[in-house]
Formats: sequence, C-alpha cells, structure tokens
Amino acid sequence: MRVAALAGGVGGAKLASGLEAALPDGGLSVIVNTADDFELWGLHISPDLDTVMYTLAGIANPETGWGIKDETFDSLGMLGEYGEDTWFLLGDRDIATHVLRTERLKKGESLTAVTGGLSKALGIPSRVLPMSDERVSTMLDTPYGRLEFQEYFVRRGQRDEVLGVELRGIENSRPTGEVLEALSGAAAIVFCPSNPVVSIGPILAVPGMRDALADSSAPKVAVSPIIGGKALKGPADRMLSSLGHESAAAGVARMYAGLVDGMVIDRADEGERAGIEALGMRVLVTDAVMRDEADRARLAYEVLGFAEEISGSSGRSG
Amino acid sequence: MRVAALAGGVGGAKLASGLEAALPDGGLSVIVNTADDFELWGLHISPDLDTVMYTLAGIANPETGWGIKDETFDSLGMLGEYGEDTWFLLGDRDIATHVLRTERLKKGESLTAVTGGLSKALGIPSRVLPMSDERVSTMLDTPYGRLEFQEYFVRRGQRDEVLGVELRGIENSRPTGEVLEALSGAAAIVFCPSNPVVSIGPILAVPGMRDALADSSAPKVAVSPIIGGKALKGPADRMLSSLGHESAAAGVARMYAGLVDGMVIDRADEGERAGIEALGMRVLVTDAVMRDEADRARLAYEVLGFAEEISGSSGRSG
Repeated sequence: MRVAALAGGVGGAKLASGLEAALPDGGLSVIVNTADDFELWGLHISPDLDTVMYTLAGIANPETGWGIKDETFDSLGMLGEYGEDTWFLLGDRDIATHVLRTERLKKGESLTAVTGGLSKALGIPSRVLPMSDERVSTMLDTPYGRLEFQEYFVRRGQRDEVLGVELRGIENSRPTGEVLEALSGAAAIVFCPSNPVVSIGPILAVPGMRDALADSSAPKVAVSPIIGGKALKGPADRMLSSLGHESAAAGVARMYAGLVDGMVIDRADEGERAGIEALGMRVLVTDAVMRDEADRARLAYEVLGFAEEISGSSGRSG
Repeated sequence: MRVAALAGGVGGAKLASGLEAALPDGGLSVIVNTADDFELWGLHISPDLDTVMYTLAGIANPETGWGIKDETFDSLGMLGEYGEDTWFLLGDRDIATHVLRTERLKKGESLTAVTGGLSKALGIPSRVLPMSDERVSTMLDTPYGRLEFQEYFVRRGQRDEVLGVELRGIENSRPTGEVLEALSGAAAIVFCPSNPVVSIGPILAVPGMRDALADSSAPKVAVSPIIGGKALKGPADRMLSSLGHESAAAGVARMYAGLVDGMVIDRADEGERAGIEALGMRVLVTDAVMRDEADRARLAYEVLGFAEEISGSSGRSG
C-alpha cells in the first residue's frame, strides 16, 4: 500500500513517522510545505523539511519536536560573538544540513534532489518531497507590519495577530513530478494535523495541486490539528480566528470541504461530528493527541483503517 | 610606532601576537597570505586569516596553533553522517566564521572589509589584512599529481614531495590599499617565521608587493622559520629541499636577499651567521622558538629592537 501525506512541521512529522512505522519500507511519501523556507546568513533553511526529515530519521529533539536531539549550539554562540542577532536557534548538527543544502542548490540540484540525497543518507525509507522546487515565501500581515513567516513564528514568538497571508511566488510554483507521482500512485492521501493556513494551505495553493488531488481516486483523510478549540502546538487556533475561520475541528473540516472524504477528530470534539458530516465527510472520533511513538503508530493505523473503510464503502479500489 | 608584519599561519600568528603585545593598540598591521584559501561545502575558508585572527583574539587552540580552543565538532560529525568526506577539521565555532565570511563576500564586501569586521567583533586591536582581495590558489605539483594546497597540507598530510608551485590567479591580484598603506606607514616591516615558499612567497608574489616593500624606507627584518635545518612546524624544510633551496636559515636568507635588511636566527644556527652576513644582511642570533606567550613577546621585543638598531645604524629615520 502506498500512501501520500501532506505535512508541515512538528505535528505533521509526528503522524508521518507513525505512517512510516505502519507501512512497508518505501510505502510513504511525505509532501512537505516549503513556503516557510528562508535564508539566514546565506544558508537556505527549510524548517518543515528538516523537521520531517529529522523526525523520520529518528534524530529529532523529542522535547521540542524540531531540531536534533542532544544538539549543541556553539556555532550560534560564535555568530553571536560576531555581533549577529541569533534569534533563530541553529544547532551545530542542524547547520550541516543547511550548509549542504545551500551548496547543492547553488550547484544546480533541485530542492527535491537535495532533500532526497540528505534523507537517503540519514537512512529514511520514505520519500520526503518538497511541495515544489520553486521558492515560495509566506508573508504575514500583522498589526506590527508585514512579516516573513519565520520572523513571525520564531523571532517574534507568534505574538502578532495575523490579519492576512500572502504566499509570495506561489503563482510561479508547480508540484514536482515526484509529488504528482506520489499523489497519483497513492492508495490513500492523508492531510496531517498541521496548520491548515500556513502549512497545508501553501501545499494546496501550489497551482495544479488541487487538480492532482481531485484526479486521485484514493480516499483522502485529514486529521484535525485543533482539539477542543485549541491547537496542540503553534498558533493555528489564533490564526484561524483572526483570519475569519472557526478555531475548531469543524472549522478545519470546512476549509478542507470538497478536498477530503473523511476527518479524524479527537474525542473532545465528538460534539462536532454532525456538523462535519453535514459537509459530506465521514468522521472518525479517536484519541488524536500523539504523546509518544506508540500514539503516532496507533493513530496512523487508525487513519489508514479509516481510509480503507471509506475506500471500501464508496466502492473505490483504493 | 607602526609595524607591518607579513604572516602565514601558525608560526606567523605567534609572532604577530607577540608584536601586538609589544606595540600600542592599533600599532600592528598583519598582512596575511590568502593563497591557500579554498571552498568547502560552498564555504569560503581562509585558513591563514583565521589562524591569525583567532590567535590575536586569544581564542586559538593552544595545542594545535590553529582552530579555536575548546572547539566542538558536531557539524562536521553530521556532515559525515550525510556521507561527506570530512578530511578538513571544521569546528562548530569555526564554521560560524566561514558562514559569515561567505555570506558577506556574496553580498559584495571585499575580503579585507569582511576580515576587518570579523576581527573588530572579536576585539582585535590590530589590523588583519588579506594580502589581496583577489582570489589566488596555491597549486602544488607532486608525484601524486597536482594538488590544491589544503589537499596537500591537510587531506594528504603533507606526505607528497613538492616538485613545483603555481600561484593560480596571482597575475590578476594586487595589494589592497590597506596593505599599501600599512607598508608605507610602517616604521618596521617584519617577515614572520612562516613558510617562505607557500606563506610569505605568495604575499611577495602579488604584483606590486615587492615594489611597495622597496619603496618603504623602514628596516625589514625576517625571522627564520628554519631552526637547525628543520621547520618547527609544517613541511617548510622538505619543501625548500625538494624545490632546490637550502633547508637552513641561510637558505631562507638567500630567498629574502635584496628584500630584508636583517635576519633573526636561532642560537642553533649561529654557524650560519657569516654566510648570511655575506648576503649583505645583519644577523640577530637569539632563542627563536616560541613555546609560550612570554616567548612570543620576548622575541617580538628583540625583533623590534633589532629593526630599530638597523634603522639607526643605516641613518634611516624609521
């Protein structure tokens, strides 16, 4: 069984690692948001690709979900001694990733090829795929002014109200051949519990991506990143509200209406089942919080089972 | 008193730090070989500039003379995990230097400006000056084939016989305005005990450098890097021999004939005094080995005193 997952950072990476554990080696392709990529000290940093890659390689920092475990920060300390503003926490091992990525991109390799090479070297059996090889930048309008995503997210600690989102460059992006292949060959497509605005949103906004999803006959299942009205991690809840969406599992479902066949929601949101079903979606109510690796695998099995159930009931040969 | 010193890596940096200690703040300009600069993983590495800079900043590794003390190597370890050949020992703090240098050069800053910025941030009172802002590459002919300097020096551990030296790009290089100013304003010019072929040699080979030295009326004094026929560090002795020079203080003196007024040699080489004086040079015999900081300062005072003596005796107003 081949599965394609759409993912942003920490939450998406967790479910992706559960899916990897649940599938035979090579069965999983993770299509990752790259709209929060940015340059720092001339290095090309892809925060979501890194988080997915480190998580699937089993080297992610278990405390934070991002970065590398047992990381040191001597490079960053030295950058500070040189008078640099060290707002973005670059670990020493992490820097190696950015240095290699930057060098290989400069040499003309695509981000897809670079990511494939790095993932393979780390022993990852799944395919980690940037949503696009073109550069897209998430720009956020806030009362503080216009902010690049990482400035909002890391530098200013997500304290600004998000009033608007621009995906700069999205019109010139397109899904890579690898992404299209992953989608067309998938027996199930999973929207991971990532921020629907700034993680899954940019993936869906790549011109041609929605068509590719529509063309696939595979069941499509989304896992809500909002539980009890709150994001488990990050600013998705406040961002949904300030952008006029509902910070609720049903609100996420509405954003995915017409795109997914089923929503996986937490027991805390049982009450939203009817509202989501009214959108024409099937609903799986379960424990959607991933506290540890066992949770990730369990949730992944449930998601895959749910997809299979949808596939069977709709007569699809997923 | 303003002093200009010509230096390569470890040996040169040691005397430069002694000179800095012996002079009032801002009195020293170190003109540094950059012909062994190279690119690794897209980073612009300037080994000699770094050694001089770290030494003058008081953060050099006292065991090796190069690199930073208490350095960690997690980035390099990760580069190894990515399958990279980690023959060049890049420390985590050291990488910060290369990342910033690379970024600033890409932005259009000159190597001189970049080095000035980094040195200032590290609190160095002296001026650390690349010999030139143009790229020069030392290529060595060996029985193993043609090698870039760092390949010969680090990767292959200096085990190959050096049969020829090419300074690629030297014809397009020129001394920077800062270098010319340092030379013209100096009351003494010191050739540090660096390799005369691949450290001092490239500096002297920059078109216009010998003229600038000749135009200066300051006494010029060289400290022999060869003691008792051997290089204290590095392959200078073998390199001198294989290239047809004499691996001796007198051999070094011959290479600097017409350029310097005096040679500082070790007591072990007292027997070479007459031969060197026959070249028209004054000779200072002293303890030329720098074991610790006290040695560096002592040797620096002696070198400056020797220069002053030469200046006085020749009627120069140094």
